[in-house]
Amino acid sequence: MIATKAYAAQTKDSDLAPWNFDRREVGPHDVQFDILYCGVCHSDLHQIKDEWGGSLFPMVPGHEIVGRVVAVGSQVSKFSVGDLAGTGCMVDSCRECESCRQGLEQYCLKGNSQTYNGLEQDKKTPTYGGYSNTIVVNEDFVLHVPERLDLAAAAPLLCAGITTYSPLRHWKVGPGHKLAVLGLGGLGHMGVKFGVALGAEVTVLSTSPNKEANAKELGAHNFVVTSDPAQLDKVTGYFDFILDTVSAEHDYGQYLSLLKVDGVHICVGAPPTPAALQAFSLIIGRKSIAGSSIGGIAETQEMLDFCADKGIVSDIEMIDIKDIHQAYDRMVKGDVRYRFVIDMATL
Amino acid sequence: MIATKAYAAQTKDSDLAPWNFDRREVGPHDVQFDILYCGVCHSDLHQIKDEWGGSLFPMVPGHEIVGRVVAVGSQVSKFSVGDLAGTGCMVDSCRECESCRQGLEQYCLKGNSQTYNGLEQDKKTPTYGGYSNTIVVNEDFVLHVPERLDLAAAAPLLCAGITTYSPLRHWKVGPGHKLAVLGLGGLGHMGVKFGVALGAEVTVLSTSPNKEANAKELGAHNFVVTSDPAQLDKVTGYFDFILDTVSAEHDYGQYLSLLKVDGVHICVGAPPTPAALQAFSLIIGRKSIAGSSIGGIAETQEMLDFCADKGIVSDIEMIDIKDIHQAYDRMVKGDVRYRFVIDMATL
Repeated sequence: MIATKAYAAQTKDSDLAPWNFDRREVGPHDVQFDILYCGVCHSDLHQIKDEWGGSLFPMVPGHEIVGRVVAVGSQVSKFSVGDLAGTGCMVDSCRECESCRQGLEQYCLKGNSQTYNGLEQDKKTPTYGGYSNTIVVNEDFVLHVPERLDLAAAAPLLCAGITTYSPLRHWKVGPGHKLAVLGLGGLGHMGVKFGVALGAEVTVLSTSPNKEANAKELGAHNFVVTSDPAQLDKVTGYFDFILDTVSAEHDYGQYLSLLKVDGVHICVGAPPTPAALQAFSLIIGRKSIAGSSIGGIAETQEMLDFCADKGIVSDIEMIDIKDIHQAYDRMVKGDVRYRFVIDMATL
Repeated sequence: MIATKAYAAQTKDSDLAPWNFDRREVGPHDVQFDILYCGVCHSDLHQIKDEWGGSLFPMVPGHEIVGRVVAVGSQVSKFSVGDLAGTGCMVDSCRECESCRQGLEQYCLKGNSQTYNGLEQDKKTPTYGGYSNTIVVNEDFVLHVPERLDLAAAAPLLCAGITTYSPLRHWKVGPGHKLAVLGLGGLGHMGVKFGVALGAEVTVLSTSPNKEANAKELGAHNFVVTSDPAQLDKVTGYFDFILDTVSAEHDYGQYLSLLKVDGVHICVGAPPTPAALQAFSLIIGRKSIAGSSIGGIAETQEMLDFCADKGIVSDIEMIDIKDIHQAYDRMVKGDVRYRFVIDMATL
């Protein structure tokens, strides 16, 4: 077994604190990589606080994981020691179901193995995430992180990146499209970068007027303050797509009115409570409200390669792991541009 | 002006009763046809009771209108006296906007002219519907009703028919697809007929176990009682599409769980109150909930021709116009298979 240092939550009421555990030996198809950086996702906090229910403890959060390979199994063909490597939200899936066969492991019908707060495919062995110094993952769920990317800033691509890239690709967002990005946080700022890189006209919708300069710096063409009815009126029926990254409660109806005929409102943020939906707001204009979850492994690799090609990474603020709870507090307030990344050397 | 006999509601609190009014003279581009049959749509009742707000009185309901042409304007090229003719939910639109240019007059950005309880494109002249003996409509909004169809049973095609046909065509429902039709009323029974004719495997989802035989008679391959958890469990993740014809309150989340990955729940029924929607139920499986409203004029003609080709009409119960309120009472209880049609000879 591989002795591993980590930060873990022992219960939903306890803070994260140092914890040692063993990872499995490197099997024939496994890659072991030492974790250099791990992004901090809002879902880390939701899960350690058991806000979605069913949390498994002890919990080592973290699913935006990058580092360098230190060992490979005898059958591994895709990685060599010394390669950069990354792992996102999944470490395995059934590989047999209709979704897996289509490269949509994120929608594995038998349930994929989440990187933490999940179970391996034996449905017994708990998984532990990236707030740790090393990780062992089946090579099929390890990504190649291009060397030309800033490694720390690439970590959030594994969740915030793919979560916004995948729906933009699925709905074929590109030149000629008017894309609104709702919310300018970890996901939203990646949505802006990808929307611009894919050739769409990008508008940031935000409750915070003071985010306009930031939005423009990220490449957004327009900025609309959603609390100002006059500004909202101007974009009624304007957008082909809204990429909704907000995980706080909000009124879908208000945003559906901003869509064109056949427009699609894509939820990648998941408010904890149900929202009210009026069917009329969909019927008048054949609109849709859809959801999307991360992306498949092949698409995640495509996204990383796209980022290398376009020079895209996350805007990050590096933190020491001992400051993780301060980071959570600031994240909840939206006080981060735009993603915290843990320097794992501080573990 | 053309003296017209009708049944009208004078206020939202009054029953329908005989009323005489004048229709405009037949203009150069107009077709006048005498109304032989008019279908009874649930929206007729909603609107005379002002349940959606903004109703205009006096109101002559009716937007499933068929009859025979008695006069045509000097410039009319598409119709001759003696032709069968039909008019659905619209009698005009701006003809210039992006939607109209695409043949999507139902989504006219400047607002189309509803057949009743609406205004002509001058935005002043009220429109009066098909509970009347004759109607004058611009030829571009008059449909050819194929002679081989039973005329009375063809009337509901103009609303119930196109409302279910259009989304099935838009989402390309066909062979290999598993289609659920939620609710077996005026719209639902047409959804079943069209789904079967388009080659899909059709399952009726209903709260009423006693509708199974009827569903099968209509061609449905399967029937699921939605109040039975065991039956619902068997179709979890089963459907590519749900065509939701229910206009009473219901839980979208329950039905979204029946969809496959990338499945689409299509609302054509519009509950009067908002429903609760949990974004997670869309995100897990990249599902969509969409809406659709009737169809464009060209598509409505396509649907009528498709019906002639496939021998499809509505299942109807003919009524005298004096019995309209009894018919409404029975419609509200779901006690009709599946659409009332007024024999306008009884006016």
